[in-house]
Amino acid sequence: MTARDVAARAGVSVTTVSRVLNDKAVDLTPATCERVRVAARELGYQVHPAASALRRGRTGTLGLVVPDIGDQYFHRIARGVEDAIRPQGFGIVFCDTDRDASLEDEAVDMLLSKGVDGIVLCGGGLDDDRHLRSRRWHNTPVVTIGPHRLDFPAISADDVGAVAALVRHLHEGGRRRILCVAGQPTWLVTKQRLVGYHTAVEELGLDDDPKLVVHAGFTAEAGEHAVRQARERGIDFDAVVAFDDYAALGALHALQALGIAVPEDVAVAGCDDIDFARFARVPLTSVRFPTYEMGRAAARLLAPPPGEREEVVAAFGFELHVRESSAPAGRRG
Amino acid sequence: MTARDVAARAGVSVTTVSRVLNDKAVDLTPATCERVRVAARELGYQVHPAASALRRGRTGTLGLVVPDIGDQYFHRIARGVEDAIRPQGFGIVFCDTDRDASLEDEAVDMLLSKGVDGIVLCGGGLDDDRHLRSRRWHNTPVVTIGPHRLDFPAISADDVGAVAALVRHLHEGGRRRILCVAGQPTWLVTKQRLVGYHTAVEELGLDDDPKLVVHAGFTAEAGEHAVRQARERGIDFDAVVAFDDYAALGALHALQALGIAVPEDVAVAGCDDIDFARFARVPLTSVRFPTYEMGRAAARLLAPPPGEREEVVAAFGFELHVRESSAPAGRRG
Repeated sequence: MTARDVAARAGVSVTTVSRVLNDKAVDLTPATCERVRVAARELGYQVHPAASALRRGRTGTLGLVVPDIGDQYFHRIARGVEDAIRPQGFGIVFCDTDRDASLEDEAVDMLLSKGVDGIVLCGGGLDDDRHLRSRRWHNTPVVTIGPHRLDFPAISADDVGAVAALVRHLHEGGRRRILCVAGQPTWLVTKQRLVGYHTAVEELGLDDDPKLVVHAGFTAEAGEHAVRQARERGIDFDAVVAFDDYAALGALHALQALGIAVPEDVAVAGCDDIDFARFARVPLTSVRFPTYEMGRAAARLLAPPPGEREEVVAAFGFELHVRESSAPAGRRG
Repeated sequence: MTARDVAARAGVSVTTVSRVLNDKAVDLTPATCERVRVAARELGYQVHPAASALRRGRTGTLGLVVPDIGDQYFHRIARGVEDAIRPQGFGIVFCDTDRDASLEDEAVDMLLSKGVDGIVLCGGGLDDDRHLRSRRWHNTPVVTIGPHRLDFPAISADDVGAVAALVRHLHEGGRRRILCVAGQPTWLVTKQRLVGYHTAVEELGLDDDPKLVVHAGFTAEAGEHAVRQARERGIDFDAVVAFDDYAALGALHALQALGIAVPEDVAVAGCDDIDFARFARVPLTSVRFPTYEMGRAAARLLAPPPGEREEVVAAFGFELHVRESSAPAGRRG
C-alpha cells in the first residue's frame, strides 16, 4: 500500500495525497482533502508516524506530568487537556511522579526522549523547582499548572483565596481554633495555601498557635494520622481545614472513630471538592477549582486550534461548596 | 551539539557513541557505556527521537485505551502498566472513550498514527466489539483487559464469580429480593456480571423477577436514578447489588434520601472496592479486583523486561470486602 494507490483511488496526484496527509494542504479545497482522507482510510494507508514526525518536526503528542493521575484534581485536568487537543489529533503521554523530585526529573527526560511537542507540568512545585530550573528542556514548550518557580507560561488557581475563604467560613460558624492539615512543607502548593490560612487567621484575630499547623500529605491516611497525633499531643481545636479532600475525609474518619461529633464538636473542610465529598459520612464542605477548564487552557496555550487567536484565561478562581461537615458549632451557640 | 562532541568528551569514537545511545552496545564494557551516557547527559545531547524511532522500528510508547481514567478501576490499571514499563523507558499514551464505540475507534486510529509499540485495551467490550473486530491494527500488538470478543492475548478478572459471591453474601444476611443495578446491556462487562447474578439467584432459589434487573451505568447519578425509578414503579427489594461502586454510592444516597435505612431495610453492595467505599455514609461492601496487578501483567505481555521468561498470570480472582452496608437484615431476623 503506497501513496500512489491512495492517489489513484482519490483521483488526485501523489503530491496532493502527501500534502493532505501531512496537513500542508492550505490551498486545496475541503472536498479534495476529504476525498483523500476517505481513500486513505478505505485502503488502510497511514503516513509512517516516525517519518512524519521528522518531516513535520513533531510527533503529535503532548506530555502530561502529574503527581497522581488517580487524584481527581489531576484527572480532571487530564480530561481537560485531552478534550481540548483530541480534535487536533494529539495524543497525551502521561507520567505520575508521586511528588518525588527525581521521578519528576525522569518523567521529563522520558517525555523529551519521545519528542513530545510540548509538556503540561502540574501539581509539582517540589523543593522550589530547583531540579527543573537547572535542567535542559531542548526548546520544548512547557506550560505549568499550579504554583511553580519556573519561567514558563503558567495556569494558576487562587489557592490563597480559597483557603482564606474556608477559614472565614469556619469562623462565621463560631470556630476559633482551626487545625490546619497541610501538605509537606517543601511543596509550593502547601506554601501558597498556608499564606491563605495565615492571612485569614490574622485578619480575624483567631488563635495562631503554631501547633495548629500540621504537615501531613494529600491522602486519607495522612489526614487520619494528623488528627490522631494532634489529639494525642493534647492540641485543642474546634475545626479542621485540610488542604486536600482525601486528607479531610481521613480526618473526618479519625474524629468519628475517636467519638468526636462532626460538625457539633469539630467542623471539617477540605480542598478540591472531589465527587465523593457529597457522599461522605458527613457531607464535606470544600472549595472547587475549575481544574477541567485549567487543563483546557494549558492545552490551548501549547496547541492553539488552527486559526484561533483568542486570549487564553490563565488565572482561575474557586467556588466554596458548603455542606453539613461545617455547620455552625452545635454545643457552643 | 553533535555525537562528535560527546565522543570527544567521553574519549571514544563517534560509532561507539551511536551504538551506546541506540542500545546496540552489546559487546562494549559497562564502564564505556556509562562514560558515554554521562558525557551525553552533561552536554545535553540526545538522539533525535523520531530518527531513533525509525532506526529501531519503535517509538518507545504504549497506548492505553480506557473508558475513563478518572474511574479508580482504570487508573489503578494505568498505574500498574506505568510502573511495569517505566524501567524500560516506555511512555504511555492514554485515551478516554466514555464507553462510546466511535470514540474507541478514533482512539485506536490516533494511537496507530503515533506508531505506539503496543496497545492495552481495557474496559471496553462495547457492542460485542464489532467495530474493533472489523478494523485494521497494522500488526500492532494488543493486549485486552476485561471481557472482549477479540482475538488478542487477554487479561481477565472473575466478573462472574465476584457478583455471584456478592449475591450469596446478601442471601446469607437474609435478603431475598435483590435489585441488580447493572451497566448498559450492550457492554460485555454487564453480560458477564449478569451471568454471576443469575447463576447465584437460581442456585439459591431467590426471586428471579426480571423487573429486579435495571440497566443503568457506572456513575453515582445512574445508581441514584435506578433506585428512585424502581421505587416509583413499586418494585419491592431488600438489597441492591450494583455492578460499580460509584453506582452503589448513588443508590445508597437515594435510599437514605427516601427515608429507607441501610442496612436495616435494604442492604447495598458494589463492585470494584474503590478507596472511598470505607468513607461512605454507610461503609460499603464491595468486591475488589487486583487491577494494579492486571495492568502490570498486560504491560509484561506487551513489553517483557529484558531476559525475563517467566509466565504472566492472565486470569485474576477477586476479594470480597464486607462492611456495614450489607449487615444482616435488621427488622427481619
